[in-house]
Amino acid sequence: MAEAFHGVGVTRIRGGVRTDDRDRAAMEEPLEVRLHDKPFAVIMRTPGADRELAAGFLLAEGVLKSADDLGTIEYCTDPAAEHPENIINATLVNGSAASLDRILAERRNVTMNSSCGMCGRLTIDSLKTDLPALVTPWTVPSSVIVDLPDRLRQAQAVFDETGGLHAAGLFSREGTLETMAEDVGRHNAVDKVIGRMVMQERLPLTNSILFVSGRTSFEIVQKAFLAGISMVAAVSAPSSLAIELAEECGITLIGFLRGPNFNIYSHPERVTT
Amino acid sequence: MAEAFHGVGVTRIRGGVRTDDRDRAAMEEPLEVRLHDKPFAVIMRTPGADRELAAGFLLAEGVLKSADDLGTIEYCTDPAAEHPENIINATLVNGSAASLDRILAERRNVTMNSSCGMCGRLTIDSLKTDLPALVTPWTVPSSVIVDLPDRLRQAQAVFDETGGLHAAGLFSREGTLETMAEDVGRHNAVDKVIGRMVMQERLPLTNSILFVSGRTSFEIVQKAFLAGISMVAAVSAPSSLAIELAEECGITLIGFLRGPNFNIYSHPERVTT
Repeated sequence: MAEAFHGVGVTRIRGGVRTDDRDRAAMEEPLEVRLHDKPFAVIMRTPGADRELAAGFLLAEGVLKSADDLGTIEYCTDPAAEHPENIINATLVNGSAASLDRILAERRNVTMNSSCGMCGRLTIDSLKTDLPALVTPWTVPSSVIVDLPDRLRQAQAVFDETGGLHAAGLFSREGTLETMAEDVGRHNAVDKVIGRMVMQERLPLTNSILFVSGRTSFEIVQKAFLAGISMVAAVSAPSSLAIELAEECGITLIGFLRGPNFNIYSHPERVTT
Repeated sequence: MAEAFHGVGVTRIRGGVRTDDRDRAAMEEPLEVRLHDKPFAVIMRTPGADRELAAGFLLAEGVLKSADDLGTIEYCTDPAAEHPENIINATLVNGSAASLDRILAERRNVTMNSSCGMCGRLTIDSLKTDLPALVTPWTVPSSVIVDLPDRLRQAQAVFDETGGLHAAGLFSREGTLETMAEDVGRHNAVDKVIGRMVMQERLPLTNSILFVSGRTSFEIVQKAFLAGISMVAAVSAPSSLAIELAEECGITLIGFLRGPNFNIYSHPERVTT
């Protein structure tokens, strides 16, 4: 069975006291779905039940109208594939097979969409080639970090009584809230905050801290990196790929920021206690 | 300022006692992003800071390499547009403008991707035309519903200590867990569960209840509908568009399922107290 968790190093801050420890992060890896051996889509997912995921995805995408349309659905058997465990190939029968060419033409290059996370490791490598890792020599005291959630909450124009909105805030190194946004989508809230800075021509955000409610995925770290943000903090857990990308991109990634406590998953040197 | 919340009717179940009330749901609406008046992408989002969202999205997608590439970014001014408040048009300058044709060609038909939620109201209408609303005459006692979270938790092979995994479970009307899946992505967990049933040729899932950790978006309800599931329950809040789609598709949508309490946002007639 595929592993759902990945062992990671962590620096725990508990009331200002620092200890190095081990932790587990939920696995996040790309899954490429192919139709008749041709690329159809890439999904960022936790390994496990991959054939089922691909079948359900094809149903939701309208490629399968019913179970009768599904021929075979198997892991990639191409000996040239570097990560066959991250590739599922499906074949169609009945009506869906007849419309295969149309389906594939409509999806051509859909994997260009980086918001789908693209191709995991491949993306990390290409990002690293394109752009150097962030090198920002400043540090932030842990006392500033633990105040971020309250500062964001106080500033929320519409306090979210429904529990249905995610929030993202951009802070200075001193912990001053510079701008914030809310959205049903965590990724959208981050795009709104960074987009506002793009429109004010303030990129790269070399001296900023990004704080998000919820979890951090590969994609959140990627968005921060492209904006030049070298510290990302979140209320909940990071994924394995978020940690890996943060490590390689020079980003300090903080999770489980609650009360006086938080965990640092990469580049802990930017946090002082 | 755009509204972030939408007033909705709700049936509250508190320890088996039923009351009709009003509630607020986080707004979810489609935003179409255009480049030089040509469709580029559709994002499901909470209205507000839409120009910022589009700018941040274009940066994350690699369309903008820096703020210098952004010319104008404004709401749609086409008098023929039915919902100009849901359309942002951006123009590019410098290098990005030169590569506009390539960018648009690569994204051709990317809005076909229903996992992006497609086009909100438009999608709801087309779904209604294609498929009739679900009519399942059975009812479920509230005592069965309040047990779902614990039953799923007990069955989780890998109990999620990290807080990083979402779970989805498919239950019979009697509350028996039929299958479950975990993933960093809520949507993936649902696809895994439904996909398993597709592979077993068990669709439509007329007698099943889908339970998900986290929130319900338009997309979760859409996936349930395509699988023939007429009851969806979640630990957290539904979005405005999830409620609207559930109402129109004949789906009973339950939120804030915690302890002996939950809220019903659509088709409460399937729940008995």
